[in-house]
Amino acid sequence: MGTTVAPNLLGAVSEARQWDRLMQMAKLGAIPGDGVNRACLTELDRQARRLLISWAKPLGLSVSVDAIGNLFLRHEGTERGAAPVLTGSHMDSQPSGGRFDGIWGVVAGLEAVQALRQAGIATRRPIEVVAWTNEEGGRFAPGCMGSMAYAGYRPRDAWDGVTDAEGLTFGAELAKLLASERDIPRRGLGVVDGPAPFAYVECHIEQGPRLEAEGFDIGVVTGIQGSRWFVVEVHGRSDHAGTTPLSLRKDAVQDAIRAITALNALMHDPADLLRFTVARIEVSPNSSNSVAERVRFTIDFRHPEKEVLLERGDAIGRTVAAAMTTCTATVTERFHALPAAFAPDVPDAVERAARAQGLSTLRMSSGAFHDAQFMVPLCPTGMIFVPSRGGVSHHPSEYTSPPQLAAGTRTLAAVLEDLANR
Amino acid sequence: MGTTVAPNLLGAVSEARQWDRLMQMAKLGAIPGDGVNRACLTELDRQARRLLISWAKPLGLSVSVDAIGNLFLRHEGTERGAAPVLTGSHMDSQPSGGRFDGIWGVVAGLEAVQALRQAGIATRRPIEVVAWTNEEGGRFAPGCMGSMAYAGYRPRDAWDGVTDAEGLTFGAELAKLLASERDIPRRGLGVVDGPAPFAYVECHIEQGPRLEAEGFDIGVVTGIQGSRWFVVEVHGRSDHAGTTPLSLRKDAVQDAIRAITALNALMHDPADLLRFTVARIEVSPNSSNSVAERVRFTIDFRHPEKEVLLERGDAIGRTVAAAMTTCTATVTERFHALPAAFAPDVPDAVERAARAQGLSTLRMSSGAFHDAQFMVPLCPTGMIFVPSRGGVSHHPSEYTSPPQLAAGTRTLAAVLEDLANR
Repeated sequence: MGTTVAPNLLGAVSEARQWDRLMQMAKLGAIPGDGVNRACLTELDRQARRLLISWAKPLGLSVSVDAIGNLFLRHEGTERGAAPVLTGSHMDSQPSGGRFDGIWGVVAGLEAVQALRQAGIATRRPIEVVAWTNEEGGRFAPGCMGSMAYAGYRPRDAWDGVTDAEGLTFGAELAKLLASERDIPRRGLGVVDGPAPFAYVECHIEQGPRLEAEGFDIGVVTGIQGSRWFVVEVHGRSDHAGTTPLSLRKDAVQDAIRAITALNALMHDPADLLRFTVARIEVSPNSSNSVAERVRFTIDFRHPEKEVLLERGDAIGRTVAAAMTTCTATVTERFHALPAAFAPDVPDAVERAARAQGLSTLRMSSGAFHDAQFMVPLCPTGMIFVPSRGGVSHHPSEYTSPPQLAAGTRTLAAVLEDLANR
Repeated sequence: MGTTVAPNLLGAVSEARQWDRLMQMAKLGAIPGDGVNRACLTELDRQARRLLISWAKPLGLSVSVDAIGNLFLRHEGTERGAAPVLTGSHMDSQPSGGRFDGIWGVVAGLEAVQALRQAGIATRRPIEVVAWTNEEGGRFAPGCMGSMAYAGYRPRDAWDGVTDAEGLTFGAELAKLLASERDIPRRGLGVVDGPAPFAYVECHIEQGPRLEAEGFDIGVVTGIQGSRWFVVEVHGRSDHAGTTPLSLRKDAVQDAIRAITALNALMHDPADLLRFTVARIEVSPNSSNSVAERVRFTIDFRHPEKEVLLERGDAIGRTVAAAMTTCTATVTERFHALPAAFAPDVPDAVERAARAQGLSTLRMSSGAFHDAQFMVPLCPTGMIFVPSRGGVSHHPSEYTSPPQLAAGTRTLAAVLEDLANR
C-alpha cells in the first residue's frame, strides 16, 4: 500500500479548472442567490450529463450508460479484467439546492482521473467515474435509485410508477432520457449484470458544521446513519367551508396536524441525535374555501442507532392512526436503510492520503444519506468530506471554497492511485 | 304587487330543458364521480360562456360583456330607460366541485326569461341574466371579483396581479378571455359606469342540509353571514433533513402547525356557528429531505355575527405571531365582508311567489358566500335556495333533483314577472 504520493499527481490537480467546471454546471438550473434547481431526468439534467461527457471524451475516457441512467466515464487500467475502482456522486439537486452537493463528487472524480493521466500515471485497475441517477429523491422519491439498482438492492423497474408533482412517472421520464442518449454505449447494470467493483470512494461536501467549526480540512467518513422514509395519507371529505359545521366535517388538514403533533412527541430526543422532518405536504383540492379531502405528507426519519430507527420508526403507523379523529390514514414506508459502517480499508486510505499532503483529518460519520451506503455490501467503501460553510446545504447559500474543494480532490487522486494499484 | 302568477308562465318553465342544459354544462370540466372542475378564465370557462350564448341568441336576448368579464343576456322591457331587474350567478366551479353550484343560477335565469317570452308576457322593466366572473376564488383569490367590481366595491384592476398556482396572473388571463370575445358587444361596468339595477335575485343550491332535513322546497334567503379571508406566510430556513439537528432548525412546517393549533383554540365555538377552515397549504421547497423554508396557508373564517367576526378575526395576527418559535410570520387579510342582511322587498316577493305555487318555504340566512352580498348596497336583493342532497357542495357528489331545480326556477320566473312590472 502506497504511503507516499507522486508530487506530479498533486500538481496536476487544477483548482481553477475544477472550480470553472463547477460554475459551468451551476448555470444549468441556476436560481437566485447562487442556488441550483436541477431535478433528475429533466432537460437540465440531460444538459449537465452532456457537459460532463464533453469534458471526458477529449481525455480519452470511454463513456457508457446503464439501464437506470447511471453514467460512467472509464479510465482503463493496465491489467485486463481487473475489477475497477469506482468513484463519483450525483448531478441532480434539491429544488432549492446549492452548487456543490453531489456535482462536486462527479467533477472531482473527473479531475482526479485527468490528473492521473496528465501526470502519466498508469494504474493496474481501471477507474470509473459514475454519476448516479436520482440521488436526491426530490422529484421522484426515494432517492438513490441509481445506486440501489446498481447494487441489486431493488429491481431496475421498482420505481417505474413513482410520479412527480406533475404526475409524470419515473419510468416514462427515464425512457425519455435514455432515448436521448441512444448515441452512448449501453453497459450492464452493476452487480446485477456483472462483477462487483474493487472499491468505492465518493467525494462530497460535509453538509454539516463540524469540519468548519473544528478546523479540519478533510472528513474521513467511517459510516452513514440509517434512514426511514414514509408517506402518510389522511383521507377526509371535502365540504363547503362556509356552510358545513365544524362538528360535521372530516377535515384532512386538521387530522394531519394532529398526526404531526403526535409524531413530534414520539420523536422527542433530548440528545438531539434524532432527525425527524416533515417537509413535503400536498393538500387536495387545495382550495381555500373547500375543506381538505386529502392530505399527503412525507416523513424523513434518521438516527445513527439501529435500535432507535427500528423502534420509533415502527411506532409511526400506530401513532398516526391514534391521532385520527374523523379521518382515516394510511402510512407507507418508502425507504428503509439501516445505519452503514464502512470497512476500514478505504477510510484508512483516505486518512493516509490526506495526511501525506499535510491536510488535517477528522474521522466522522455522515448525517446525510449517500449513494455510498449501497456500495457497502459490494466492496470496501469510503467517502471524503470537505467543509460546508455554516454547515448549510440543500440551500442556495451552500458554499465550499475553491482551495477546500481542491484539497479534497487531491486526496481523492492519491486514494485512487493507491486503490487502483492494489 | 302581483300575488297571483299567470299559469302559462309556470307551464312554460321546462324541467327537462333546464336539466339538459345543466348536464351539457357539466361536460365542460367533467371529473370522476359526476364532478366538475371548471376554473374561471380557463378554456373550459370560455366554452361554457359560448354555450350559454348559443342558447340565448336564438331567443332574441342581446349579449354583452363588461371590463371584468361579467357576461349579460338582456331581455328588453316595454318602458324605455327603466332600471333592469338583474338575476344570475356564476359559471366557475371549485377544483373538485359539482354540477349545480353557481351554474344553476345562470341557467335558471335564462330558463325563467325564456318562459316569460314563450308565455308572451312582456315586462315593464328589462331583465338581465348575468354570469359573474370568478365567484369561487379557487383559482384566483378572493372570489366574487366580478360582482365586487360591478358594485364598485374595488377598482376593476384591483386583482390584476393575483396569481394562480401556475403563476399566471388574473389580469393577463382576463385580457386573454376578453380578446377571445371581441365579437361580443362591450358594456359599461355596473354602477361604476351606469345606474344601479332595480333589484337583484339569485338562484342557488343551499350548500347546507337544512331544506332537505326539514322538508322544505324553497329557502327564502334573508341575508349572508360575514367572511374574512387571510393568507399566513411562515418564513423559516431550508436545511438538510439528515444533518441539521432539530435544535438548530427554523422549520416552517413546525411553526405553521403550531400556528394552526393556536388558531383552532382561538376559534373554538361550542355553539358550532363559527366556520374556521385551513384548506390550502403550500410548502417551499416541498422536498421530503429539505427542511421547509416557507409555508403559506389560507384561513377562511365566517360567522353570522359582526362582533365575533371582528373580535376573533382581529386576533388572528397576534395568535400566529405568538405561536412562532424559530420562524417569523406575516398575516395578510385578503378579503373582508361583514354579514349582509337583505331588505325585505325581494325575500317577501320570493316567499309569495313560492307559496302561490304551493311550495313550502323556509326563511334562512346563507352560510355560503355569494355575489348577492355585493348587490345589497345597490338595490333590493334576495336569493332563492333549493335543497342540496346531504347538505354537500364543493364536491362531485353535490346533487339537487330536476323537479327541485324546476320548482326553484318557477319561483324565480314569478319573482321576475313581479319585480319587472313594479
